[in-house]
Amino acid sequence: MPRTLHLTLLATLVASSFAARFGRCDDNESRPPNVVVIFSDDLGYGDLGCFGHPTIRTPNLDRMAAEGMKLTQFYSAAPVCTPSRAALLTGRLPQRSGMCSGRRRVLFPNSKGGIPAGEITLAEALKAKGYATACVGKWHLGHLPPFLPTRNGFDSYFGIPYSNDMDRVADSPQGREAFLHPRFEYWNVPLMRDEEIIERPADQRTITRRYTEEAVKFIRGHKEGPFFLYLAHSMPHVPLFASDAFLGKSRRGLFGDVVEEVDWSVGRVLDVLRDEGLAENTVVFFTSDNGPWLVFGDLGGSAGPLRGGKGSTWEGGMREPTIAWWPGKIAPGTTSAQLASTMDIFATACGLAGAPIPDDRVMDSYDLTPVLLGQGASKRELLFYYRAYRLMAVRKGPWKMHFSTQSGYGQPEPEQHDPPLLFNVEHDPGESRNVAADHPDVITEMLRDVEAHKAKFEPAPSQLEL
Amino acid sequence: MPRTLHLTLLATLVASSFAARFGRCDDNESRPPNVVVIFSDDLGYGDLGCFGHPTIRTPNLDRMAAEGMKLTQFYSAAPVCTPSRAALLTGRLPQRSGMCSGRRRVLFPNSKGGIPAGEITLAEALKAKGYATACVGKWHLGHLPPFLPTRNGFDSYFGIPYSNDMDRVADSPQGREAFLHPRFEYWNVPLMRDEEIIERPADQRTITRRYTEEAVKFIRGHKEGPFFLYLAHSMPHVPLFASDAFLGKSRRGLFGDVVEEVDWSVGRVLDVLRDEGLAENTVVFFTSDNGPWLVFGDLGGSAGPLRGGKGSTWEGGMREPTIAWWPGKIAPGTTSAQLASTMDIFATACGLAGAPIPDDRVMDSYDLTPVLLGQGASKRELLFYYRAYRLMAVRKGPWKMHFSTQSGYGQPEPEQHDPPLLFNVEHDPGESRNVAADHPDVITEMLRDVEAHKAKFEPAPSQLEL
Repeated sequence: MPRTLHLTLLATLVASSFAARFGRCDDNESRPPNVVVIFSDDLGYGDLGCFGHPTIRTPNLDRMAAEGMKLTQFYSAAPVCTPSRAALLTGRLPQRSGMCSGRRRVLFPNSKGGIPAGEITLAEALKAKGYATACVGKWHLGHLPPFLPTRNGFDSYFGIPYSNDMDRVADSPQGREAFLHPRFEYWNVPLMRDEEIIERPADQRTITRRYTEEAVKFIRGHKEGPFFLYLAHSMPHVPLFASDAFLGKSRRGLFGDVVEEVDWSVGRVLDVLRDEGLAENTVVFFTSDNGPWLVFGDLGGSAGPLRGGKGSTWEGGMREPTIAWWPGKIAPGTTSAQLASTMDIFATACGLAGAPIPDDRVMDSYDLTPVLLGQGASKRELLFYYRAYRLMAVRKGPWKMHFSTQSGYGQPEPEQHDPPLLFNVEHDPGESRNVAADHPDVITEMLRDVEAHKAKFEPAPSQLEL
Repeated sequence: MPRTLHLTLLATLVASSFAARFGRCDDNESRPPNVVVIFSDDLGYGDLGCFGHPTIRTPNLDRMAAEGMKLTQFYSAAPVCTPSRAALLTGRLPQRSGMCSGRRRVLFPNSKGGIPAGEITLAEALKAKGYATACVGKWHLGHLPPFLPTRNGFDSYFGIPYSNDMDRVADSPQGREAFLHPRFEYWNVPLMRDEEIIERPADQRTITRRYTEEAVKFIRGHKEGPFFLYLAHSMPHVPLFASDAFLGKSRRGLFGDVVEEVDWSVGRVLDVLRDEGLAENTVVFFTSDNGPWLVFGDLGGSAGPLRGGKGSTWEGGMREPTIAWWPGKIAPGTTSAQLASTMDIFATACGLAGAPIPDDRVMDSYDLTPVLLGQGASKRELLFYYRAYRLMAVRKGPWKMHFSTQSGYGQPEPEQHDPPLLFNVEHDPGESRNVAADHPDVITEMLRDVEAHKAKFEPAPSQLEL
């Protein structure tokens, strides 16, 4: 045996013995995992390569899926922004916190309300267990001081506090023209650091890149962990902006450019987690707040095989392209079709952190850990599709029953269905074949479930109409 | 250093030196690669996990994609079976061989015609270079002796020579009932070995498994290579049949069960190639003959985000879920959105085999090797969408221009479009936004391309009406 080989082998042995005693792995075992939630805005179920988009390139999200788990029946709790985000951060239907409205749907720059102080956010729950917490990106749960991330469990905030299409300046081009050839000066949205406005209008051309840099800085600054990072991209919500490096590069036009930059951002975050040796102790979720904004045509996304989009309770409005990643824990290249919700991230993260789930209120959150680890089923049996305070539809097993349907935009009143429509959305994800007549037993059973839900349901008054 | 480690290391060194001198790798370098084409029947663009289906589990095809290349703008040459298969095997539009018909669309059990003797099939081209060749599965290019696989370059044949829903027995249940609860006895289709019928009606319950076993036997019998295997599954074309091991196992009903068995079959073939040490010298294509048969509802597949299905020249009728696999040559986990056709498999395989492309006839085949190896673009600029002898649409770059549209089934006459419809199918794969008015220059240019095509086009008389 040549001498150099001896030495190489010896060096390897020493190194692995060192790693076993002093390396990160052992440290990590005794620490709860870091939690990262990457939320995109108005991304459709069909907008990622790994969810079937033919031309948008998302190599980083595809790799995240190949290393982790695709969740193909994972839902937001609302088809629009503010209620969806409230539900994610509280683990509760937004009707329970009053973070929805039939009249306004979301918070606007002239809104006076926001997330009630009594709500317990995931950041608060994890902070109580010693987590460092950061919110980067879109907030949309109230932009006045009492409602900001820094008052809701986050140590720091950097981002645009509401939608990036709000506060359009009066002398900007009219109608769609402003969206077709957007300039950031057309929207007078603030960029905040903690509780201060640091830029207005926010230069949205670099917003995805700057959010990413902030996220990376937070991760690098909290390597000792544990930490909770909520990275809520403002993109790909119209008006669409991308950095020069991405503009004009995709086959899918401006929307594709923007999604490809969000994909880059995800890759950057995962790379930093790997480089810092944190990958095996960090669970990362990627998902979206609601479906694609179809009325914007090419500037909106695609729900892929699903019907409808943002604003509606058809599948396309609320089923989200979701990926969970946790190397060494989640088996690579797996897919779960179990029923799950953004609200379940709350109980999952609390479970992993050893934080108690609030027991003084009704929660709508089920721990997904058994699903992620391939050890069993989630306890979630039902999923409710609300439009503001109106229960539009309910899901149980493969069945989805609609009481009312309404397109996301442009249909002023819902269409009522009595008897309700019934779809097997596992056979027919496009909701094209009403099979109610063939399954009266299913309808009866689901109506009983809805009765039981309604009997106990106590919605709070809207905070969005203040 | 412990003594056992010394010995292990020594054994490893000896083994690798042996492999370097006598192993398969070196042998393979001097041999042209084996070619395997796995063709499915009526599988839709959206029916695989890696192409975005939410509930059909296709772990083997997903792994094939993760180890190889997804082709997301890859088309069949026709929206129905016989012409699509003729084009695949000849590298030519089916109108050039007469393998299409406006009246009958495909061959039927009472047809007297088939693929003309003068056509050069891929099997013939590869056989001339010393390839062993086998056809397993559905043929549908003529079931009378002169037209069988064994008369068209294949050393052997095992399969059902036409569609599995033909020759329905008179006293089987009427209408859809026979498809909802299919029994193989309802369809009196023959199973052939070479030129003999060996079973009638073919027991379709085990057909996917038996095709797979035949394919495996052929691979194992021709390890020394080179070989060409054309494995054309009869499934998931209605009537749907699966082995007991798959029946009732999917979340997508019978159709899902059947696709999951086809997925198993692909996994079995790739496993055998790996086990036999042939993986790095075998290029495998997986694709489908046409889009999903939508009028069959739950018994048909899904085109995912695409419009239309089998029988139509909307994207859903002809864009196929395609994967190419060649470990060590095709970079893993890649996606190509380059324009490509099943007809391109001909020139690609011939190029790899060192076989000449026929130069005494017009070919419609472009070598995909640069695309597969990530070395450049295909030379294909145009794609023609024919329905029998009628040119319905044409594709160039991101643009698709329709002269006529017609649903696959149930619309007796095509709808004419003058001016033509124009879609940017890279932005709008669902063909929902006609942008003709915005791009008169594109229309002018494409009309010129169509003129040039038509000026040189010499269709042959139909062989399907004999």
